[in-house]
Amino acid sequence: MGKIDVGKKILSANETYALKNSQFLTARGKRCFNIISSPGSGKTTILVRTITDLSAKVRIGVIEGDVQTDIDAERIRATNAPAIQINTEGACHLSAAQVNTALDKLPLDALDMVLIENVGNLVCPSAFELGEDGKIVVLSVAEGDDKPVKYPAIFARSKALLVNKMDLLAGSHVEFDLERVKVDARRLNKGIEIFPVSAKTGEGMQNWYDWLTNQVVSRR
Amino acid sequence: MGKIDVGKKILSANETYALKNSQFLTARGKRCFNIISSPGSGKTTILVRTITDLSAKVRIGVIEGDVQTDIDAERIRATNAPAIQINTEGACHLSAAQVNTALDKLPLDALDMVLIENVGNLVCPSAFELGEDGKIVVLSVAEGDDKPVKYPAIFARSKALLVNKMDLLAGSHVEFDLERVKVDARRLNKGIEIFPVSAKTGEGMQNWYDWLTNQVVSRR
Repeated sequence: MGKIDVGKKILSANETYALKNSQFLTARGKRCFNIISSPGSGKTTILVRTITDLSAKVRIGVIEGDVQTDIDAERIRATNAPAIQINTEGACHLSAAQVNTALDKLPLDALDMVLIENVGNLVCPSAFELGEDGKIVVLSVAEGDDKPVKYPAIFARSKALLVNKMDLLAGSHVEFDLERVKVDARRLNKGIEIFPVSAKTGEGMQNWYDWLTNQVVSRR
Repeated sequence: MGKIDVGKKILSANETYALKNSQFLTARGKRCFNIISSPGSGKTTILVRTITDLSAKVRIGVIEGDVQTDIDAERIRATNAPAIQINTEGACHLSAAQVNTALDKLPLDALDMVLIENVGNLVCPSAFELGEDGKIVVLSVAEGDDKPVKYPAIFARSKALLVNKMDLLAGSHVEFDLERVKVDARRLNKGIEIFPVSAKTGEGMQNWYDWLTNQVVSRR
């Protein structure tokens, strides 16, 4: 076959919206992270605690993705942070077009950062850019320490990994080798930041807050 | 618009393979269940314990679906049960065509039942029939009691729900309202069988074994 010169990558519909979102947020100096995990790893609890504890330093707005219900957005709004709920009606990940619509509804001028809580799913959301500055993966210790090797894509593509529910580990209620997770995640992604935390007890959260706050400061 | 008479449903490629698998298994008198859950809810641990404890009564073969690795099939093979690993290479659910190929590799004459462990994902696998007699959904108490309302499709479509890691609940290490889960799951699916279990301690497993054994007996 002859050589084909492709001068410009043709963007998919999702990539086109992701690029729009990224340009829109960058032009306004707002940081944006896309939080991805299995169902029930504690994404919403992490968000609620982070928003509350950082309220004096970083003004956070939330885009909530769920298959059904607005339970999670209601939990965020109880902190007084603005939250826009997207119901995917069965779809397994958020799309950049959905995020584009939600961004228009957020009071961006009053915010430093947008955190997107994706649909609970460790597989599909990793393949769809939303226009974020980075992905953040959450893994609960109850899910087991084999997840980076079994679901490598999201660990390879994330800026940070929060290992949540460390309180369960402290009492030896679950078997989980944190060192194995660190080694396996860094084998996939040399630069990944790893924060063992408990959003329930607050353990380890300060290191995560420092990193997140620094993301805003570094853009100012 | 005029009336259109559709005499026969046109099957998708997946539905065609699902029908083939179903006919193939039924003709041989073999039961088949499709086990679906989030990553880390304990599907493989449930399988290992079930195969071991039922070995004198029900001969079980396993089809293991994973995005990557054959860790789970190796765990099954350690029980001496046959296990065929399918790696989806990034895809978020098993397809009926993949199961069709795996069925050819299992020693079906020596088995009563095939259990399929789907990719860890509470969303996508619920939409793809594999030719099974029924779906079984597993929910770990660590994932939270709001999962039936947030991910209704799989709870609406399953014959049985295993609520796993009850040992964590017994010690009050996690907050989880079992009654809420039962009410919400039965609102979606009046006939769903619900088994609170701990695959770790063995608590509640006998009820699940009785139900599963009865599935084989009812076909003989």
